[in-house]
Amino acid sequence: MTDFTITTFDWVPELPRGYVRDLRARWALEEAGLSYDVQSVPFDDRKSNHYDHQPFGQVPWLTNDDISIFESGAILLHIGECCETLLPVEPQERAKVQEWLFAALNSVEMASLPWFIFKFTDGDSESSEQKRIGEFLHSRLQHMEKTLAQKEWLAKSFSIADIAMADVLRLVHRFDGLEDYPRCREYVTRATSRPKFEKAYKDQLAHFEAADK
Amino acid sequence: MTDFTITTFDWVPELPRGYVRDLRARWALEEAGLSYDVQSVPFDDRKSNHYDHQPFGQVPWLTNDDISIFESGAILLHIGECCETLLPVEPQERAKVQEWLFAALNSVEMASLPWFIFKFTDGDSESSEQKRIGEFLHSRLQHMEKTLAQKEWLAKSFSIADIAMADVLRLVHRFDGLEDYPRCREYVTRATSRPKFEKAYKDQLAHFEAADK
Repeated sequence: MTDFTITTFDWVPELPRGYVRDLRARWALEEAGLSYDVQSVPFDDRKSNHYDHQPFGQVPWLTNDDISIFESGAILLHIGECCETLLPVEPQERAKVQEWLFAALNSVEMASLPWFIFKFTDGDSESSEQKRIGEFLHSRLQHMEKTLAQKEWLAKSFSIADIAMADVLRLVHRFDGLEDYPRCREYVTRATSRPKFEKAYKDQLAHFEAADK
Repeated sequence: MTDFTITTFDWVPELPRGYVRDLRARWALEEAGLSYDVQSVPFDDRKSNHYDHQPFGQVPWLTNDDISIFESGAILLHIGECCETLLPVEPQERAKVQEWLFAALNSVEMASLPWFIFKFTDGDSESSEQKRIGEFLHSRLQHMEKTLAQKEWLAKSFSIADIAMADVLRLVHRFDGLEDYPRCREYVTRATSRPKFEKAYKDQLAHFEAADK
């Protein structure tokens, strides 16, 4: 019996495996050294109980004693509250981690997710909308490139902001969106070389592979 | 001399007036009863000092003593830490506010902002990408409609999550995206009827109008 439980789908198709957002929760809990269980809900037939925990019918959600919390950003914040190295208490450093956490999700991922949706579904043909969303993403990546040229991690040390940002950027990298951004690529490599990421990643793959059997 | 300073652009074109994100900071500070100054940076010629505070070259940022913080979500969180009614201390309620704050920015606005970009620039012609991004937005609004049928505010009482969500939804409403979602429309009306919203909104309009003179 552990205090933390991550709930994710019982199965997902091949494409998103390794990229389902329960990875952010797994990675943070691994970095924090907190033990946790993983539970499953049906991917194909989402019950009303699912929507009680995650109103958009997605995953993951985290339970911690009598708290149930959805949205990967809020989950990271909650785990950070339990681990000072991932979310410092000192006000200036705390603000830095929090602003970069939101930047990952509301400035970078807001551009990268639509780019990914169009990229994946329409292949190489480029419409005016694809071009525009590509420009939107690149405007953000240009600024990230400058930021990451100056530092190893977004705040003074590795934090929940890096878990969010590295996870957002590695999906861009997967579809060759970081070709012009060597600092962003190095950052992704740096983050995903951490043993705790590797464990979280392998565990997610194993979770979905087990469902195939 | 006040503890809080919002920095926004000195001027913006007509279209975004009333919708620039400094409104979220103004509204939250008004609701919290905290006094603040508003300072300007050039819209047309962004200096390196601007990027020091906001690496993407956007606005707003908030300074509070020796803390400078960007991203409207992080600013709301910071203001919430100074006002228990906007961000409760009780763990379950706190988690609820935080998850809905992220939901506004990372689940709903992630769909609404690309929809808005396409809507505004391409008018009524509907490409397959516009259709897809419209479906993405509507899948989120359907769940918001169910959520808002059950409650007045996202958590037990009005919070920073409502400031973010109402601000995201009122931009959708502005471009007739809430036609099929009466509960979402009512929620936008309820939130924007609050005197503190009205003050923040008028102050933002006055700020940009002053620059025209």
